[in-house]
Parts: sequence; C-alpha cells; structure tokens
Amino acid sequence: MQFAQRLQNVETSAIREIFKLLSTPGIISFAGGFPDAALFDVEGINEASQRALSQHPALALQYGPTEGYMPLRAQIADGMREQGSDVQATQLMVTTGSQQALDLLGKTMLSPGDKVLVEGPTFLATIQCFRLYGAEVVSVPIDQDGVQVDLLEAQIQQHKPKLIYLIPTFGNPSGAMLTLERRKRILELAAQYKVLVVEDNPYGELYFDAPPPPTLLALSAQVPGSREWLAYCGSFSKVVSPGLRLGWIVAPDALLANAAMCKQFSDANSSMLAQVTASEYLAGGRLPQALARVQKVYASRAKLMMDTLNQELGDALHYTAPQGGMFIWASLTGAGGRNRDAAAFVKRGIEHGVAAVPGAPFFATDIDHSTFRMSYASVPEEKIIEGVKRLAKAL
Amino acid sequence: MQFAQRLQNVETSAIREIFKLLSTPGIISFAGGFPDAALFDVEGINEASQRALSQHPALALQYGPTEGYMPLRAQIADGMREQGSDVQATQLMVTTGSQQALDLLGKTMLSPGDKVLVEGPTFLATIQCFRLYGAEVVSVPIDQDGVQVDLLEAQIQQHKPKLIYLIPTFGNPSGAMLTLERRKRILELAAQYKVLVVEDNPYGELYFDAPPPPTLLALSAQVPGSREWLAYCGSFSKVVSPGLRLGWIVAPDALLANAAMCKQFSDANSSMLAQVTASEYLAGGRLPQALARVQKVYASRAKLMMDTLNQELGDALHYTAPQGGMFIWASLTGAGGRNRDAAAFVKRGIEHGVAAVPGAPFFATDIDHSTFRMSYASVPEEKIIEGVKRLAKAL
Repeated sequence: MQFAQRLQNVETSAIREIFKLLSTPGIISFAGGFPDAALFDVEGINEASQRALSQHPALALQYGPTEGYMPLRAQIADGMREQGSDVQATQLMVTTGSQQALDLLGKTMLSPGDKVLVEGPTFLATIQCFRLYGAEVVSVPIDQDGVQVDLLEAQIQQHKPKLIYLIPTFGNPSGAMLTLERRKRILELAAQYKVLVVEDNPYGELYFDAPPPPTLLALSAQVPGSREWLAYCGSFSKVVSPGLRLGWIVAPDALLANAAMCKQFSDANSSMLAQVTASEYLAGGRLPQALARVQKVYASRAKLMMDTLNQELGDALHYTAPQGGMFIWASLTGAGGRNRDAAAFVKRGIEHGVAAVPGAPFFATDIDHSTFRMSYASVPEEKIIEGVKRLAKAL
Repeated sequence: MQFAQRLQNVETSAIREIFKLLSTPGIISFAGGFPDAALFDVEGINEASQRALSQHPALALQYGPTEGYMPLRAQIADGMREQGSDVQATQLMVTTGSQQALDLLGKTMLSPGDKVLVEGPTFLATIQCFRLYGAEVVSVPIDQDGVQVDLLEAQIQQHKPKLIYLIPTFGNPSGAMLTLERRKRILELAAQYKVLVVEDNPYGELYFDAPPPPTLLALSAQVPGSREWLAYCGSFSKVVSPGLRLGWIVAPDALLANAAMCKQFSDANSSMLAQVTASEYLAGGRLPQALARVQKVYASRAKLMMDTLNQELGDALHYTAPQGGMFIWASLTGAGGRNRDAAAFVKRGIEHGVAAVPGAPFFATDIDHSTFRMSYASVPEEKIIEGVKRLAKAL
C-alpha cells in the first residue's frame, strides 16, 4: 500500500523509543509529560458531569457547533479577560485538546515548503504536526529567558516564515520563561514583518511564586498592529484534566473562520459531553482551589528535585531553574559541549532504574545532544530523591 | 494573511447555505442529519459516566493511548465479531467521531492529485475532507441497490484511484443499500486492482425490518486478498450518542500504524472521559434495548413520511424507499430531468415552512440538480404529516 507523501516528512522512531522507555518495570520515571492524576478534582468533575447529563442531556449528548459550546466559549473568554486579554467568546474556538489547535493551524496556514520558526528546543509534537503539513521547521536558540529575539529577527529575515510557534511561559521542554521585554519585542516583530506568531500557553497558570509576565495576547494591546498577527492556544489539560480533551484557540477572524472550516472536516466538533461538563465545572467555582493545590505540589516537587540535583550531581549538570510548569531542562557539562551524548546517559539511567527523555528530538534543527528533560510533576517526593540518586550513580 | 493552498480546494458556501436554513423560525425541518436526542439513553449514559469517574478516575481524566482505551477497543472488537467480522482489539483504533477516521484516512493516504472514487451522491463532509488533502474526488453513479459496480470498475480503470469511499448500508444521503452480490463484487475489485476500499458504516444497525447483508468487512473473509485492501469506519454517534464524539477505524496493520501516528499529531488521543464512559455503557448491557427503541421509532417515522409523500405528492417525486438509516433521497420528476432545480424547490419549501437539503452538494462530480434529502429521524409524527403537506403546497 502506498501512503501519502507527507508521511515521509516525519521521523517517529525517536519518539517511539522514548515512550517505550516509560514501561520498563520498577523504574522511577522523570520521563512523563502528564499532569499528576492524583491532583485532579475528581469529585468536582464528577458533579459537573452529572449536572451536564441531568440538566442539559440533549445538549451534552448531541452534535454541537464546530466552534464550540457557546456558554463554554463565553466562560473561557471571561477567564482570559480576567487575566488581562481582551477576548470575546466569538473570537475563540474550542478544540479537541490544544494539540488539535496546532493541527488546525497547520491545516489552515501551511503549504508544503513553508517555513516555521520554533524555539530550540520545543514541544516535539508541534514539530511533527507542522512537518506533516509539509512545513520546514527551523529552530531559533533560546536561553533561560526564552527565545533570543535578535536571533529570531535574523531568522525571520532569512527564512520569511509563515508562522512562529512559541511556548513563552514555562516552555516544554525548556522550562524557560520569556521576559516582558522580549515579549514586547516579539509582538513588534510580528507587526513589522507581518508574520503570524502562535503563543501556546498550556502551562502559564502553573507558576510557583510570582505570576509570569502577561501573555503575548494580553500585551498585544500595547503593540499596535500585533493582535492581527497573533494566535493563542489554551488548554484545560494541565489544570482541570486531559481526559476532557479540550483546549481552545484565539485567532484573528479570518484565520478562526478557516480553522473552523477545517475542524468541520477534522472531527466536526469536540465532545459536547466534555464541553458541557467543563462548562458546569467552571460554573461550580472549584477551579481556583484545584489550581492552587496543583501549583503548591508542583512547586514543592520542583524545589526538591533542584535541591537534590545540586546535592547529588553538582557541576556535572547544568539546568534551567523553572519558575513554573512541569519540566527541568538539563544538559551534561564538561568536554564535548553540545555533542556530549545525553541519549547514552539516559540509557545508563534506565539501567540504574531512572528514566528521563533525551533532548535531541525536541530540536527541529541545530540539535544540542547534551540535553535531556525531566518532569517532577507526577513523581512523589521520596521517588524524586531516589531517582536523582540513581541518576548520579549513572553519571 | 495568506492561508494554505489546500483551502482553495474546498467550497463551503453551499454547505453554509444549507445550515443557515435550519435556523429559520417556525420551520418544520427535514434538513437535519442528527439522531433524535429524545431517544438517547440519558440514564444509562449518566450511570456509565458516574461509574467511569468513581471507579476509574485516574484513567478517565488522564491522557490515554493514541489508539484508544484498550477495554473499549476490546468491546468494539467483540461487538464486531458478534456481527460476523473477524476483528481483534489491536486491529482497530478509536477516533474522535468517525469524521476523524475519514480525516486520518485522508492524512495517511492522500497526496495532492490523488484520485478518490465516491458514490454519487455521498456524505458531503467526506468530499470536502478528502479535497483538503488535495484529492480529486470523482462520483460513481448509484441506484437504490447502491453503487453500480460495472461503472465503478470502469472508473477504477480510468482513474486508478488511491481509495474508494462507500457507505454501503443506508447511505447518507441516498438511503440506498448495496446488495450482497455487489458487495462481493466490490471486494473482488479491491483485491484485483489493489485499491483501498473504505466502508463507512454509521447507519448499519438502524435497520427497520430485516438486518442488512453482512458488511464488506465480514464478507472479506470470503474474498481472498480483499481484507488487506479494506478499511472500516464505525461510530457511536447514531446509536449511543454523538456527544461522546467517538468512532473507530479497522484497517490493515501498516495503515492503522500510520493513521495512529497521524492521530498523535491531530489530537493525541480521543477523550478518555468519553471512552471510559462508553466502555462502562457497553458493559452495562443497555445498548440492545436502546437500539431497539431507535429502530422502532425511525422505522415508524420513515413509513409515515413515505405514506404521506405518496398521498400528497404522488408522481411529482421519485424517492428511494429506505430500509433503514435516517434519510429519504428524492428527486423531482417531469421535464428537465437532472436539471430540474431542486434547490429552487427547497427554497419555495422554506417559504412554505418546511426545510430539506438540496442534493447538489452531495455530488463530487456529475451533479443531479433534481435531488434533495429529507430526514425523518428527529421529526415527530404530526410534524412529518404537516411538513409533507407544506412541501406539496410548495410544489
């Protein structure tokens, strides 16, 4: 059987290898990217689901509008306005997880051969998603303050990209947080070069101490002409539950209309059972408390992991200290620089009973082989300590 | 903003026009394609959802495998085996509605310029879905016994299609049912010409009197070499609930693996809340009773609509008498043949307070303008009678 040509653009073996690692028995896994299921507000979601099915059964069990359940769209817009973004319900569409928002952006925007700029490193499913639409994905270097804006501008000039994809706040895998100054500069670049910037923000609410700077979307009000070149992807997965499989996208009208047309032929609409349940959950007012609990636990685990890394591995590792999110991004130090083989180190770690994710697949181009990703989000404290000790033995 | 080239392949105005019609106030609508929400087993689904969230919260609220929740895959496979198809759980993948199964088939199989053969008429979202992947979609004429296999073979020879998409049982919009003989012949053609046949079967269980012939999938066991050229799409939407947004695809191993890879970057996985709920619902054993109720009501409404059409419109219409499903496919008779303007007739109908769907958008090529589609599925009996009377006045 002959498959579509676009499949030749993606390399999945690296990804498969990673996920195979996770099922090794007895292992302490820092490799996951999932939120901690023990922190889900099961009772609240169960109550919401029962309200959805008892009070709105004909809505919750029927097909729905492609753009989403209007009360939920309004609640999402309300929440974004509270966080400083001027968003109306009709300016956003509910998606089947924020992964679908990325897929619809690819389908709507990308023709074969188009260039896309991403952070190096970035979410690997984004790289593959856009490659499936024929895009050539190019990495722009980042540091702990996020993407390096001067290099970004140079790459814009060189590649004339169709879009720029960024996770400005607590990036996956980088944990980096883009500074306020850089955020504003990126919006200026979007307006100046008339290039679409996609702000993916699944982790923004998972801050530990101080809230992060305003989103690009919120800041766009201060940068004339930038809002029309900005799309924003949000998600219920990291705070409420990935099981609902709901995210959303805010985008300029014409882009949103075309993305909705594409969604009509992708999955018609996102689960109305999930959407009405999410709407009832938000209406129930339990989210702030659930969020506070997640923030507290992740902050404590992150601190413990960093303290233990400092104690057990010292200078052998360099890592970005996250101020929120779910990830610590580390690199091996010493001779060899970017060619130090973190994949081999991760393999040794598995032999010692601890798993992480090698960093190479997170780079679209210009791979830093010395890197790897660890998540503390779902790991109990005693396992964080033991896992880091095992890592030290592997080193 | 410049959008992807692929958007130029789709024509959405016709579809938008159709859906605008549905919101005219006071209208009796035969235009819908939705199942009747009053027939959903709300109590059973609510109980299943509560069981999912109380007994399996960490599964129902977490990310899940891209291929689907294994117990649900096993239950679907069991159900298909009971209906005569040799299917194992690992040979199918759960999708976000069967619309996503079509999208993944397009993504996995179709390169720009590839040909796809479909029934004329067929499900219009399939036409647009495949066109978004650059396919050239060609209609093959059907009659009340389904696609005309001699013409199909000629088109295979002429176009060398990448795939053939069929709704063999109670087609949308045609209501037609492919005969046993033609089913076998199509499987022979698949094996002979090594062309993928996609059997979309959302309506097969909605039969009125006798069950339909076995599916292509079930019959493939009798036609050597055909199974490896066959994909099958199933759905929970027409019998259980579209609100779950769950369907599935059975396909040869290599195709299924590539479709799963594509799904990973489309929406990662279908809602686990929906999947665990569906699994608990199937385990609860209430489906046969719910199905029997839907069958009985739809059969009664279909018969009433046909009787009233015969009485009120007589020879002015020709229609295919459905033996199941949700649709009556009609054409205007008299001078003008395929050029009689059913769209104008539908407009007059709306002025008289009754809506149907003009048939033209259901044809990929070779449009029969004299056709239109009526659904009886969600219309109470007194409104069926009154609606048909209004149609007669409009004529």
